[in-house]
Amino acid sequence: MPDNVFHIDFTIKMKEIYFDNSATTKPSQRVLDAVIRTMTEDYGNPSSMHRKGVEAEKYLKEARRTIAETLRVTDKEIFFTSGGTESNNWALTGAAGALKRRGNTILVTEMEHPSVSEPLRFLEKSGFCVKKIPVDSVGHPDEAALEAMLTEDVILVSAMYVNNEIGAVVPVDRIAASVHRHCPNALVHVDAVQAYGKYRIQPRKSGIDLMSVSGHKFHGPKGTGFLYVRNGVRILPLLYGGGQQGGMRSGTENVPGIAGLAAACREAYEQFEEKTGHMMELRDRLEAGLREMDGVVVHGGDAETRAPHIVHAAFTGIGSEVLLHTLEDRGIYVSAGSACSTHKRLASPTMTAIAAVKEEAVSSVRFSFSELNTEEEIDRTLEVLREVIPVLRRYRAH
Amino acid sequence: MPDNVFHIDFTIKMKEIYFDNSATTKPSQRVLDAVIRTMTEDYGNPSSMHRKGVEAEKYLKEARRTIAETLRVTDKEIFFTSGGTESNNWALTGAAGALKRRGNTILVTEMEHPSVSEPLRFLEKSGFCVKKIPVDSVGHPDEAALEAMLTEDVILVSAMYVNNEIGAVVPVDRIAASVHRHCPNALVHVDAVQAYGKYRIQPRKSGIDLMSVSGHKFHGPKGTGFLYVRNGVRILPLLYGGGQQGGMRSGTENVPGIAGLAAACREAYEQFEEKTGHMMELRDRLEAGLREMDGVVVHGGDAETRAPHIVHAAFTGIGSEVLLHTLEDRGIYVSAGSACSTHKRLASPTMTAIAAVKEEAVSSVRFSFSELNTEEEIDRTLEVLREVIPVLRRYRAH
Repeated sequence: MPDNVFHIDFTIKMKEIYFDNSATTKPSQRVLDAVIRTMTEDYGNPSSMHRKGVEAEKYLKEARRTIAETLRVTDKEIFFTSGGTESNNWALTGAAGALKRRGNTILVTEMEHPSVSEPLRFLEKSGFCVKKIPVDSVGHPDEAALEAMLTEDVILVSAMYVNNEIGAVVPVDRIAASVHRHCPNALVHVDAVQAYGKYRIQPRKSGIDLMSVSGHKFHGPKGTGFLYVRNGVRILPLLYGGGQQGGMRSGTENVPGIAGLAAACREAYEQFEEKTGHMMELRDRLEAGLREMDGVVVHGGDAETRAPHIVHAAFTGIGSEVLLHTLEDRGIYVSAGSACSTHKRLASPTMTAIAAVKEEAVSSVRFSFSELNTEEEIDRTLEVLREVIPVLRRYRAH
Repeated sequence: MPDNVFHIDFTIKMKEIYFDNSATTKPSQRVLDAVIRTMTEDYGNPSSMHRKGVEAEKYLKEARRTIAETLRVTDKEIFFTSGGTESNNWALTGAAGALKRRGNTILVTEMEHPSVSEPLRFLEKSGFCVKKIPVDSVGHPDEAALEAMLTEDVILVSAMYVNNEIGAVVPVDRIAASVHRHCPNALVHVDAVQAYGKYRIQPRKSGIDLMSVSGHKFHGPKGTGFLYVRNGVRILPLLYGGGQQGGMRSGTENVPGIAGLAAACREAYEQFEEKTGHMMELRDRLEAGLREMDGVVVHGGDAETRAPHIVHAAFTGIGSEVLLHTLEDRGIYVSAGSACSTHKRLASPTMTAIAAVKEEAVSSVRFSFSELNTEEEIDRTLEVLREVIPVLRRYRAH
């Protein structure tokens, strides 16, 4: 009997708490079902002229419609990609290539994901002029500075809807309006990888011309995503070939991935208010607990201008990685910075942009939620933090 | 009882015969298992520093090793992509971008897949000079012509290992040797999408610098593939971002796709001789039957210079699509030309290059096998062809 009791206790203690949903999420059952069905029964090539091709193509049409409905746009404005990185690379290089005769300046906030900043560095080497819009200490771009930068030569402005590290929400509507007012020929690209499924986004209403989304951030399959391209906007393809997707993105369509992506998109906007409300409760509960602790700084501005699913905090005197691995030992998975850059040990551009002191940048941890997380997990995490923080600080002092 | 008999008969008649394996294949059970496991249990982001990330990264390492072993190369020469189209686009634009200071001529056979010829058209617009190596009537490049074209200015030569339409096998070893002898600075790219899994390819031994492979052509998942980049060869990335895959191909790795791809690669080279031998028997059996029919021309040269899994034949007086749909009605799935170009009704570049008369180009059908096909399926197909061909010709004559 005591053996049995011990076993139960151990199991409870090691129950996994996954707070790294901004890195990736667990695919849902409906996503998995869609993937399995298209890998076993309807495995045809959508370009084949026979029945198996027609069946496969139906999944693409259906997926396009499902996704378009979540954004209130038309089916033909949705283009499937291999993920957020391809969507961002394609949007930026495709727009720059198509508009290079009209100007050569590209504006971007100084707090972007590397899949935006790195292709821009490549474009810079190819002769484009890339200028950074400054952000304030809570991650919001300086709108007056942006306005001053909107000269005739600007062809493209890129902004991240929700910052992947601190969860800051950028007012894309106002930015887009400003761009279109001052530079009627410029395109507005939005990296919505951390925002889709967390906000009701209407690109048309918001003045967004191009918008990137990644499937695996909201329980969809890895290796999937899409780019919204507003009707009438012309960008160059990134992948040339057999002419799939109207010649805009060639390559045999990843039918299982796309069917899974569509299932995830649909699910993301079902019981939407309940789910985002739940994530906000988790966020606020964790933050309230963190604010009671000494030497803990929660990053970002007011709760209304921050994403429902991200808490980013600095723990004075404790290295990010040390805290990450200590929590991991207790079955709690968080991120040091963001997982989107492979194992980088440097302070990220976001942290460099917002952190008051460098110390804060390297002692920060990100907790990111999905609707599957619970209040009990928050309480358990706070309990563990209260226990380990003094020990880790004492350890460091020696 | 008679009802029951009828039912059985109907079922047998409608049993599907899938002869479109060069368009796409049915994923194998082991591939499916690998995908499911990484979507349900080990769903972490390989870039995450905690256990879930480390577990996910193990799949990538293991996949790289598995694939490298099939080619007798090193792990670090394998880069995962979203498929053959990305691999081809990346290889060509990446090599052209990296070598543009050394020259600006690119050679390619006149019989390439659009995922090679279309990015080259784009490079041509950007200032590169693309020259076509002529091919003969059985699809083999003119090696003397190639040699004459190998001038100092050549930076890249691209050839398809197995032609996707007629199955012609290109002597890549000889082509690579010729290129390296005359243009020591030029790179050799091979599109091996239809060859991998059907031939034992050793890129290092064959002098191949860059080689494209697509997973879904040999029972792997759609949306997967890889590019072999010989150690020491430097090409520009196509996708920039978080620095995954050594900065060569950014973007969160599609772990389920990659695990599935690796499973398919391993399987492709298990019982390799039996499987390719079986496909050759199917090919020869079908061709022997076709040669007995009037007005049927089997394309390509000697059986030894043609892929084991492809039969391409013209049926005089019958349109490709008419025959395709007639066979489809009997549950037999074939391709009119290749499925890689979306629903194009024009004669393909391959057919234009090899067909003696235009009539032949538009009356051709491709049968493509996997090891799952059987001799009974061949016999049934021949039986159906013998039945429908006279009817279709009579119909057309009216």
